[in-house]
Amino acid sequence: MRGVVLEGPRDIQVIDREDPRIIDPTDAIIRITATCICGSDLWPYRGEDDSRHQVMGHEYVGVVTEIGAEVTTLKVGDPVVGSFVISDNTCEICQAGYQSKCVHAEFVAYTVGTQAEYARIPFADGTLVKTPGEPDPEIVPSLLAASDVLGTGWFAAVAAEVGPGKTVAVVGDGAVGLMGVLAAKELGAERIIVSSRHADRQALAREFGATDVLAERGDDFVAKVKELTNGFGAHSVIEAVGTAESFAQARKSVRPGGHVGFVGIAHDVQIPGDELFFDEIHLHGGPAPVRRFLPELIGLIWERKIDPGKVFDLTLPLEQAAEGYRAMDERRATKVLLTL
Amino acid sequence: MRGVVLEGPRDIQVIDREDPRIIDPTDAIIRITATCICGSDLWPYRGEDDSRHQVMGHEYVGVVTEIGAEVTTLKVGDPVVGSFVISDNTCEICQAGYQSKCVHAEFVAYTVGTQAEYARIPFADGTLVKTPGEPDPEIVPSLLAASDVLGTGWFAAVAAEVGPGKTVAVVGDGAVGLMGVLAAKELGAERIIVSSRHADRQALAREFGATDVLAERGDDFVAKVKELTNGFGAHSVIEAVGTAESFAQARKSVRPGGHVGFVGIAHDVQIPGDELFFDEIHLHGGPAPVRRFLPELIGLIWERKIDPGKVFDLTLPLEQAAEGYRAMDERRATKVLLTL
Repeated sequence: MRGVVLEGPRDIQVIDREDPRIIDPTDAIIRITATCICGSDLWPYRGEDDSRHQVMGHEYVGVVTEIGAEVTTLKVGDPVVGSFVISDNTCEICQAGYQSKCVHAEFVAYTVGTQAEYARIPFADGTLVKTPGEPDPEIVPSLLAASDVLGTGWFAAVAAEVGPGKTVAVVGDGAVGLMGVLAAKELGAERIIVSSRHADRQALAREFGATDVLAERGDDFVAKVKELTNGFGAHSVIEAVGTAESFAQARKSVRPGGHVGFVGIAHDVQIPGDELFFDEIHLHGGPAPVRRFLPELIGLIWERKIDPGKVFDLTLPLEQAAEGYRAMDERRATKVLLTL
Repeated sequence: MRGVVLEGPRDIQVIDREDPRIIDPTDAIIRITATCICGSDLWPYRGEDDSRHQVMGHEYVGVVTEIGAEVTTLKVGDPVVGSFVISDNTCEICQAGYQSKCVHAEFVAYTVGTQAEYARIPFADGTLVKTPGEPDPEIVPSLLAASDVLGTGWFAAVAAEVGPGKTVAVVGDGAVGLMGVLAAKELGAERIIVSSRHADRQALAREFGATDVLAERGDDFVAKVKELTNGFGAHSVIEAVGTAESFAQARKSVRPGGHVGFVGIAHDVQIPGDELFFDEIHLHGGPAPVRRFLPELIGLIWERKIDPGKVFDLTLPLEQAAEGYRAMDERRATKVLLTL
């Protein structure tokens, strides 16, 4: 089969990869019908993780083509969406809603690599969710978004305890930040403040429910959020970048007793304990337990209540993945969908 | 009046201080009937904060002797307990339960200094809570504990989301850690694991409800907690020390999705963002909003349901405060009550 490989920094190639096959009885093989490039793929792409000869991709919508002997909830032909983390969905950690930290957790990125025609999904019953029927092509991008970027933005909003009547600040106008805006709106936030300087992302943020789009960054953003909230800061802040600057911006934008939900993969972030102590805020985040939210998110998409697929602003065939990575790296695209 | 002053590192003196008087119409003057020495007093005592000529003390039980023109809930003669942070208890932050971050917040330590015969309490209506009547002498130590150390341990347990059926680990066997054990028990925890190597503190921890007292520290403690929890870690962890080592011990003892409540004043703590991200835990803490809990805690003490006053293992007259500081510094005493 054809699949994307990162050969070295900024060297994306689409090559012939070995067809996946059932190894464990809890595996399923799926034919991927849509996949995409994640902001987090840019870390290894840019050489931050020194990855070489690396299969890529962890977001996917597909159809089951083969199941292992112990798979019980899926059959060949089922259309499915899966999480970017493998989970059994039965262990104590999964049952508490933290499938991304399942005792059998494994990142789909780098091991499975779903920027490809087929994928082997371990613990298929606990990782994949069947859609109510064959999805209309128009909602495939939204279902694909549920696989990670929507699920991650949603988790960030839940972790930030977004709710009715609350003011939410979103740090990051990438795809996850924009999904955080959508989630905040859906979860009933009264005011949604987002930091963005890109006209297209500003427009999408407003479409998803942002009430205030600020060009300010860093301490200027913090000052502006305080100005908009009687000096208190936001009730909830979504951190969707992962740098020291964005983390500090998020932390300082929240009021005492408020909540920061952080989902940007932290790179070179050190949180000063004394400041955190006297700020008296809540911090929660990490790799989103997308599997917790998938049934609900699929339902919202199926009923056309949310349209997260709008976050894709460039669609390319899998064979042109390299151009997709370049477009995201150069911020010419917010998020790139790869067709098969 | 007589009052305790830290003249310089390890130099505690009891001197004549000016009698406090009403300055603002929301002030009350109280005659202090009992006060004590806090573990946090040891930071300046040991020279960590380079404090000199500093009034000391922030825990207090007393009787109102004078009120400002705008004080409405108190009258002269009322027996009261107050928080270690001044609060108006009416602002938006107070109403959300974060009185320690009130817009009028001010630390009683270092400004008021309640290791003294009298104290001026600003925002008396929002800071002090009247007891149901004249307290029996036997419960005065417990009411005094509510002023900070019990309220702080209680907040830590609430911040760590302690509840029925949960396993709680407590890092720190000082007075606050011990109060965390008591709070965890009262809040319904099933298993309470505490780290202690001091026979007297171990005994008190067991009396307050600890089910497992471990001599291990650091990574050995973490390993033991995991061993006791099917490899997962505790649901809730109370951090009651404030060093880099204790903070790491707390963070690593909690399971994914679990909660760390931290109340040790953080000194030289840097939390690595990448570890926090992949640990996927909740962090919440800071100066305890004791005022939130005071009415409930006074009620529990009044009804003899809890006996936090047992945490005091040395009682001295105010004039011998210097010996009290020495005893706590040298860990000869867990917590020292000063009588007036």
